[in-house]
Amino acid sequence: MKSKMWQKAEIDLRLEKLRALMLTHDIDAMLVGTNANLYYIAGRVFAGYAYIGADGTFRLFVRRPNDFEGEDVRSIRKPEQIVAILQAEGISIPEKVGLEKDGAAYNEVARLEKALGLSESKNCSGVLAAARAVKTPQEIELLRESGVRHCAVYGHIPALYREGMTDLELQVEIERELRLNGCLGIFRISGQSMELFMGNLLVGDNADNPSPYDFAMGGGGLNSSLPVGCNGSIIRPGNTVMVDMNGNFTGYMTDMTRTFYVKNLDEHARKAHNLSIAMHRALQSLIRPGVEAKEAYNLCADMAKEAGESDYFMGHRQQAGFVGHGVGIEVNEWPVLAPRSKHVFEKGNVIAIEPKFVIPGVGAVGVESTYVVGDDGIECLTPFAEEIRELL
Amino acid sequence: MKSKMWQKAEIDLRLEKLRALMLTHDIDAMLVGTNANLYYIAGRVFAGYAYIGADGTFRLFVRRPNDFEGEDVRSIRKPEQIVAILQAEGISIPEKVGLEKDGAAYNEVARLEKALGLSESKNCSGVLAAARAVKTPQEIELLRESGVRHCAVYGHIPALYREGMTDLELQVEIERELRLNGCLGIFRISGQSMELFMGNLLVGDNADNPSPYDFAMGGGGLNSSLPVGCNGSIIRPGNTVMVDMNGNFTGYMTDMTRTFYVKNLDEHARKAHNLSIAMHRALQSLIRPGVEAKEAYNLCADMAKEAGESDYFMGHRQQAGFVGHGVGIEVNEWPVLAPRSKHVFEKGNVIAIEPKFVIPGVGAVGVESTYVVGDDGIECLTPFAEEIRELL
Repeated sequence: MKSKMWQKAEIDLRLEKLRALMLTHDIDAMLVGTNANLYYIAGRVFAGYAYIGADGTFRLFVRRPNDFEGEDVRSIRKPEQIVAILQAEGISIPEKVGLEKDGAAYNEVARLEKALGLSESKNCSGVLAAARAVKTPQEIELLRESGVRHCAVYGHIPALYREGMTDLELQVEIERELRLNGCLGIFRISGQSMELFMGNLLVGDNADNPSPYDFAMGGGGLNSSLPVGCNGSIIRPGNTVMVDMNGNFTGYMTDMTRTFYVKNLDEHARKAHNLSIAMHRALQSLIRPGVEAKEAYNLCADMAKEAGESDYFMGHRQQAGFVGHGVGIEVNEWPVLAPRSKHVFEKGNVIAIEPKFVIPGVGAVGVESTYVVGDDGIECLTPFAEEIRELL
Repeated sequence: MKSKMWQKAEIDLRLEKLRALMLTHDIDAMLVGTNANLYYIAGRVFAGYAYIGADGTFRLFVRRPNDFEGEDVRSIRKPEQIVAILQAEGISIPEKVGLEKDGAAYNEVARLEKALGLSESKNCSGVLAAARAVKTPQEIELLRESGVRHCAVYGHIPALYREGMTDLELQVEIERELRLNGCLGIFRISGQSMELFMGNLLVGDNADNPSPYDFAMGGGGLNSSLPVGCNGSIIRPGNTVMVDMNGNFTGYMTDMTRTFYVKNLDEHARKAHNLSIAMHRALQSLIRPGVEAKEAYNLCADMAKEAGESDYFMGHRQQAGFVGHGVGIEVNEWPVLAPRSKHVFEKGNVIAIEPKFVIPGVGAVGVESTYVVGDDGIECLTPFAEEIRELL
């Protein structure tokens, strides 16, 4: 394994951010148990809980693995042991304890409330999401590394294409290339409503099939148990091929879409693809700390309207209501670039921008790249040619 | 997509089972919203809810996709619309409503309670798990189809091996073969604590690395964000190679492990592998409707003890406390074959039996197969040679 845990200085930096947010949310302590948040806090996934007190207390209560040791680590069999262990160390549970009410199951929260002797608890999911929205320098480096490797694999895509392939066959070859180059495969999505395997490859009119998931593009899928993405279509002349596949190489994932076509490219599709590129340029001029996230959405929506492309913007038969989103450990982090978003861009946000269009009879077009927000603007972490490219 | 929904007769059969269980759990209606349970009930995943009344009411409240139509389908933007829609059809919400408290997030349950005007709700997670534990004939057919395709791909494994490969390289070639043969990729696990990508391939001593997850075997993994499975080890002479990879071809997954070795096979490992096969035979004689699931565990534990293999049974540095589990839409269904299990085998249970051993310095050995419980015993859905086989 690459790293057993974050270094102490990195953990302290994250705890400091979390404690500052706990203060503004009137939370005295948090008990955190979901995998994504444990990885964020400790640098490794384990079965158990992280206890973070506003007073400086930090403990990791670990059920598994049985070889996880450290100064702050306490071994437990069940959460009911936590109070006694803390008490033996002179620490008592404060009144206002935050639990992950947006992410943890109802009965898990209820069990933890009882185990901690609380009549009620606060919700700390927002504190964790807000901390995770502003990446530390180390997180940005992990995202940068994912971006470099993501781009390298995308460079191999044209070589993987063969005439007469289905969408699934091309997707599987890209999956293999990603995996052999270190992609971890797992695609983490916050919440339970959205599921995706290794990302999405959409060919022709399948891009216009509505999906149940709140992704930018749908696709019918191969089976009604996972109705999203490729559906077995043969890639035919005149189709566009949109590749939006998994960039999780480090536990932190970049999000990246590039579009290809076969033989001939419809003029409407080319125009819409170039409009997507123009939107990236416009957002690169717009976004900096202090700008509202909804402005980014509105700018793209206005550009689509002005170009007469509103009916195809972010889908056609079913449209998505955003043009970008934070990425990191999970693919749907803050800020959200949507018309009613309350987020304001901050230095350290890492965002995927994905203005896309679905052209009936042709397919999906557009570009998605991941950017980090700096002092004066945004820097692209997935630098790769944006032009729509022919598959030969 | 293969099927848009179950046929009406199949839905009615499932609803009938659910309503019988609701009666014994004193639940008058359920509102269900997690993907696995929606797929179980409706035959397709969608964003929204299934409402099931003990009185015969059945409605699907659908947020997405926007092309989902049907007699029982009602389109909604948010769950707060459900009560008014039902009222307009002359249906009022009863007092005892079940929500998925084991699976849905705390705030999702709280929101639904408020939307339905309930001061409190019951937990219907157990009703759904109990119904899903006893498969319908159609579910068994879908599992049978997954089993056939799972076995076919396992037959290609020896041809995918090349000397000097890493565990990851071999795993990726198997992943590709699975996907090209129709594996959907997604690996559904109930609850939030366990994550796995496309399954587990364990080589040599990596099998002895404890993982945070409650799987039968661990492995160190490639990254601390997903500390399970292959870790980049080169496959060397004397290693065993345990392949336990994804059998989800139909939305219903079979679970299957076969073990290989390279060049020479340690005698202890061979003995333990053959003991695993003997345990399968013993359980095939034991299991039938009415037998307690814990008896199956105890029989294997006793056989391990008698053979002097207890220290290696179900792991070595960290041991798992079960020898099998139900499978279906998710990999950790009921019944659980564990020492304190309260489950009793019923006709229609589909179970994965996986007695395994970790031999230090050599690797993991053992066989896992998926069986369906019939009137007089169990039938294997993954029939495939069980002997440990040399990779050449």
